[in-house]
Amino acid sequence: MIIDCHGHYTTAPPQHDAWRKSQLAAFREGRPSPEYPAISDDEIRESIEQNQLRLLRERGADMTIFSPRASAMAHHEGDERVSIEWARACNDLIARVVGLFPETFIGVCQLPQSPGAELKASVAELERCVQMGFVGCNLNPDPSGGWWTSPPLTDRYWYPVYEKMTELDVPAMVHVSASCNPVFHATGAHYINADTTAFMQLIQGDLFADFPDLRLVIPHGGGAVPYHWGRYRGLADMLGKPPLSEHVMKNVFFDTCVYHQPGIDLLFRVIDPGNVLFGSEMVGAVRGIDPETGHYFDDTKRYVDAAALTDAQRAQVYEGNARRVYPRLDRALRAQGR
Amino acid sequence: MIIDCHGHYTTAPPQHDAWRKSQLAAFREGRPSPEYPAISDDEIRESIEQNQLRLLRERGADMTIFSPRASAMAHHEGDERVSIEWARACNDLIARVVGLFPETFIGVCQLPQSPGAELKASVAELERCVQMGFVGCNLNPDPSGGWWTSPPLTDRYWYPVYEKMTELDVPAMVHVSASCNPVFHATGAHYINADTTAFMQLIQGDLFADFPDLRLVIPHGGGAVPYHWGRYRGLADMLGKPPLSEHVMKNVFFDTCVYHQPGIDLLFRVIDPGNVLFGSEMVGAVRGIDPETGHYFDDTKRYVDAAALTDAQRAQVYEGNARRVYPRLDRALRAQGR
Repeated sequence: MIIDCHGHYTTAPPQHDAWRKSQLAAFREGRPSPEYPAISDDEIRESIEQNQLRLLRERGADMTIFSPRASAMAHHEGDERVSIEWARACNDLIARVVGLFPETFIGVCQLPQSPGAELKASVAELERCVQMGFVGCNLNPDPSGGWWTSPPLTDRYWYPVYEKMTELDVPAMVHVSASCNPVFHATGAHYINADTTAFMQLIQGDLFADFPDLRLVIPHGGGAVPYHWGRYRGLADMLGKPPLSEHVMKNVFFDTCVYHQPGIDLLFRVIDPGNVLFGSEMVGAVRGIDPETGHYFDDTKRYVDAAALTDAQRAQVYEGNARRVYPRLDRALRAQGR
Repeated sequence: MIIDCHGHYTTAPPQHDAWRKSQLAAFREGRPSPEYPAISDDEIRESIEQNQLRLLRERGADMTIFSPRASAMAHHEGDERVSIEWARACNDLIARVVGLFPETFIGVCQLPQSPGAELKASVAELERCVQMGFVGCNLNPDPSGGWWTSPPLTDRYWYPVYEKMTELDVPAMVHVSASCNPVFHATGAHYINADTTAFMQLIQGDLFADFPDLRLVIPHGGGAVPYHWGRYRGLADMLGKPPLSEHVMKNVFFDTCVYHQPGIDLLFRVIDPGNVLFGSEMVGAVRGIDPETGHYFDDTKRYVDAAALTDAQRAQVYEGNARRVYPRLDRALRAQGR
């Protein structure tokens, strides 16, 4: 089977985003948040069937590890209370999608991070979501939205989340949200920079000595990392660290959200297929059709199909690695006889 | 001939860096800057002969477009006066190197940028350096050193430098300096992020409509851009921009500071060789030997030699493009009969 590890609910019914707007307006005006609106199962069903589900079928994948829209997490908006409410609303909506399409979607949660706030609420929300059947979380290394005011991911600030992740045996995708810094285009700079930055922090630190079972997925093909693999191998050496295969790559995985064949080919030329999870970020950052190929830029399955992989390696990338990195997904699939 | 477009004077005599330290100490204590120390020609000669010149010869390149150490520009330190003094000291030292080795080095200058300061002093220093024979400048898109407080490169804030560059017919390499934000490792994250960020800003804006002759070199192989070339083509399309070949790539060039063969192969698979300048950043970010090849990571000539290029394309990358992007270099070479 083919599991897409990176899908966001970018097509949620409009009431959901309208509520967020009114929630932020209420915050600014010092009023309590409005009540969350009614959204019918049919509305959710339609928003999925016409978008992600249709594209999954057209492209030939079987299921998606599904999380709230990343660019809308916007942890920099409001305060911690606002983020807690918003994360719950977003995650509850994902839970409803999974409830309606249990064979096609499984949940990954947004955390109620807030710049400068401790991670207690994130730990609680992760626990709540895993109890609802979620299999992982998205961890934002920059809740300030482009001002980068949090410490590196190797800092003890983040340890409460890592401890809970380890206890629950769930991975995190390291994924920033919107940028409110005008220098950084969200999907064209901030996302890719964050991936690159996170990887370099992991080289500099020694996080996996403290958390040998922690698993982090760095999306968008690992940012700039595979393209500059020689630079990272060399920097690890200069910093006196073990080879990347031992120091980082037992715990770090990249997805295949790289929107052209040469990029995917490079990815598999330098990164062990055991560290790569199929992902498309669909419907997401880049929605158009590539005039050079006539296919959607984000139809990454085409590139993976065309990559120089053995059948066994391709099966790892499409299924085996996801089941290994997200063991709760594996258990859910087994319970379905898959 | 083989021209390396990206070399920094990372091996300057120790008095130079010691003076910088005492300059910053004086600034903090409200004292005037100390006098710049005496550095003999022999000391400069030795610092070059044992390092850059030796490596150029060993690796088989002919000359380097040479600029002050990028990580030491540190525009975030002190104030504008401090940056003006430091840029002059650094550039004057480059001028001395070029004077001692006129067939091997040609200068590119550091600008006296300072967070929040207008660019008048940078314009003046650029003019002074070009009068000394320099052929380009390094432009720091983030003089705050990792806090990203300046506007995007397409903002009118930067126009005075672009106007002077156009008037003098010199390009800029877009190059950040050290990071004082602990999340960003300088050479492992900040450099690469800045390259990616700058390119995306150029997609979003329309800078080359205002400056059709402006030329920008984005170092480190263009950051993450070639690896994510499909993403950038798709984002340009989503933003309603012309194809990248028209919108950006008439004015933007990447170097070959990518420290492994697969990265260089990708670069040439997606980027027109007419947009790529040979560069090594030597002696620079990554100084070790790659255990997989037995050669220096930053011996990028080996990768370019092994890349799938025609002889004509390789000659462009090694020489023709540099002479075209840096016309004052071309003139200087012609005056030497080269």
